[in-house]
Amino acid sequence: MTAIAADSVGYVTPQKFAFETPIAFASGAVLPRYDLMVETYGELNAARSNAVLVCHALSGHHHVAGYYRDAPDVARSEGWWENLIGPGRPLDTRKFFVIGLNNLGGCHGSTGPASIDPLTGRPFGSAFPVVTVPDWVEVQRRLADRLGIEQFAAIIGGSLGGMQALQWSILHPERVRHVLAIAAAPKLSAENIGFNEVARQAILTDPDFHDGHFYAHGVVPRRGLRLSRMLGHLTYLSDDLMGEKFGRLLKGKGDDYRFGYDAEFEVESYLRHQGDKFAGYFDANTYLLMTRALDYFDPARDFDGDLAAAFAQSTARYFIAAFTSDWRFSPARSKEIVRALLAGRRHVSYAEIESVEGHDSFLMPIAQYHALLRAVFEGIRV
Amino acid sequence: MTAIAADSVGYVTPQKFAFETPIAFASGAVLPRYDLMVETYGELNAARSNAVLVCHALSGHHHVAGYYRDAPDVARSEGWWENLIGPGRPLDTRKFFVIGLNNLGGCHGSTGPASIDPLTGRPFGSAFPVVTVPDWVEVQRRLADRLGIEQFAAIIGGSLGGMQALQWSILHPERVRHVLAIAAAPKLSAENIGFNEVARQAILTDPDFHDGHFYAHGVVPRRGLRLSRMLGHLTYLSDDLMGEKFGRLLKGKGDDYRFGYDAEFEVESYLRHQGDKFAGYFDANTYLLMTRALDYFDPARDFDGDLAAAFAQSTARYFIAAFTSDWRFSPARSKEIVRALLAGRRHVSYAEIESVEGHDSFLMPIAQYHALLRAVFEGIRV
Repeated sequence: MTAIAADSVGYVTPQKFAFETPIAFASGAVLPRYDLMVETYGELNAARSNAVLVCHALSGHHHVAGYYRDAPDVARSEGWWENLIGPGRPLDTRKFFVIGLNNLGGCHGSTGPASIDPLTGRPFGSAFPVVTVPDWVEVQRRLADRLGIEQFAAIIGGSLGGMQALQWSILHPERVRHVLAIAAAPKLSAENIGFNEVARQAILTDPDFHDGHFYAHGVVPRRGLRLSRMLGHLTYLSDDLMGEKFGRLLKGKGDDYRFGYDAEFEVESYLRHQGDKFAGYFDANTYLLMTRALDYFDPARDFDGDLAAAFAQSTARYFIAAFTSDWRFSPARSKEIVRALLAGRRHVSYAEIESVEGHDSFLMPIAQYHALLRAVFEGIRV
Repeated sequence: MTAIAADSVGYVTPQKFAFETPIAFASGAVLPRYDLMVETYGELNAARSNAVLVCHALSGHHHVAGYYRDAPDVARSEGWWENLIGPGRPLDTRKFFVIGLNNLGGCHGSTGPASIDPLTGRPFGSAFPVVTVPDWVEVQRRLADRLGIEQFAAIIGGSLGGMQALQWSILHPERVRHVLAIAAAPKLSAENIGFNEVARQAILTDPDFHDGHFYAHGVVPRRGLRLSRMLGHLTYLSDDLMGEKFGRLLKGKGDDYRFGYDAEFEVESYLRHQGDKFAGYFDANTYLLMTRALDYFDPARDFDGDLAAAFAQSTARYFIAAFTSDWRFSPARSKEIVRALLAGRRHVSYAEIESVEGHDSFLMPIAQYHALLRAVFEGIRV
């Protein structure tokens, strides 16, 4: 039996919500209907004023906290932000009603490229629309309507999740009181897009990709997915952390070089393992779609490049945080957001948190970071 | 007709040197014979005291300076360090006799994986030995003997080339008076090895790699080579330079997103072009071998991790330089070398040069950088 911490939300059950109204995307594409996988923790209060939406990043999903009772290995069924959410935790489920969802286009139960296209009776594959951050906000808005939530107490996310939180405050300023955008950026740099592009090319040029219709061939582009994840993982960590974790340690016994291309350094073995694991469950088309949503995110674009103007209608209070060791979305990128908010005289707090975990820091229970999140959530009136 | 600058070495001709004595590698493997492609510029003086060896980095070769008269496009036949070498240039060929070679295992005419293995009558492929930096130094030592050079005035290299220069001063302290190691490191970090590993996995898992014996199949692992180069290129540049060069510029006409995975941002198009070009001429086995030589480089390893002890016998004067925008081998890595040299009371100068070109800065004619190199070379007595 797995011992579950007393301040965990404990066992949870996802719900599938069906949306039968067509949705039009930024690209012009239309989906006639879709499903969303959702989890909630805590209780919506009578005033419906205590809802917190958690937006996920590239490879996340609706299972944010708690465990699955029926999982083959319960301990490994832990939600991806378990350390943040629960009774007594920084995002306290005694006070808040917390909502996680798998974004549209995902591969964890929400309608996505692996779902059956009603027009053809086969998986969408690469025919699934390219989805943008504003498209996801629209999907989440419909979910909020379904749940009877007129205004979120807070919307929180890290990385691509933080971008969704920011976008909410631009598109629906009246529907969110607090925005927590962590390890995010106002738009991707050329280097950021470049890393996404290398990962995409690994998938697109894998012979098993079959132009995105690999489902019909009974294969998945494992090689491409594996390379994408190895590269992604490498850029989410920091040189310092990798030095601490692996350094130049050799794998296995002995300290002689083996003069070949098998995994010889521990770091090689670790990256291959991460890549293999990911290739075993993640959908290649979803990976393409999520990275493209990152590339396209640029809320200032509709305001002649003026980010302050993009935020002009917003009335939310912003908490922007970044990590010293994050070189994928460095503190400098978060400060661009802060400067735009200040230029528009919006209400913003900024924290630059010492860490060694790189971009992945936003998922870690770093004491200073969690203390700040706790303070922000404690300060929210519901 | 191509106008060649008056301070260029002008038209040059490579020479092939055959070595018929077997060579044993660190791995224990033995090659019975090998060829080396070599170019020289300037004249060896009567005292044989003015020779400068230029060691190349991952994708370099013997054609360091000048042009090929018979090239289809003479201007594009320029040597890779043309801006440094010539009469009146920082490495002045009126004073120095400059030697470039293609390292053993390369793919520009020296014996390498694409050469015919005399034992089988077929290309070596993956049967070509894994070569280390000390192995290359031994090959270069034999070349020096052949050319009648007992002591180099200087050995210079950037990146992996700089590591060879450092290794020379450790293995043959009496044979080099000045070492110029630029944008180098005393050993690779876990992150460095990680980037090499992702690139290698792209090649090794390409179905056209055929375990390194693709020559017999009439194919090359283009997909893998292309990904390796895209990733490599991305890490050789800096975020700032890519921001200046590409930013978020879209390719072609119009400024609407196209909602697909074709090259849409300029940076995508640029990286694909670099990858395609490289895949058209570089040997996949050479790429594996060069990256592994980088991984294995760790001269302190034979001295219980004490880098200062590794340099203890050296009498050379060192010039160590690094670039502010280089995040692949950052100034911090060069300072590790400097600290070890100082700890052992060796003679060392260090320069940290402002640049935006990232790791590739060492190839660029940055004014401060070239002025420093000029001063170092002017100070060398021959």
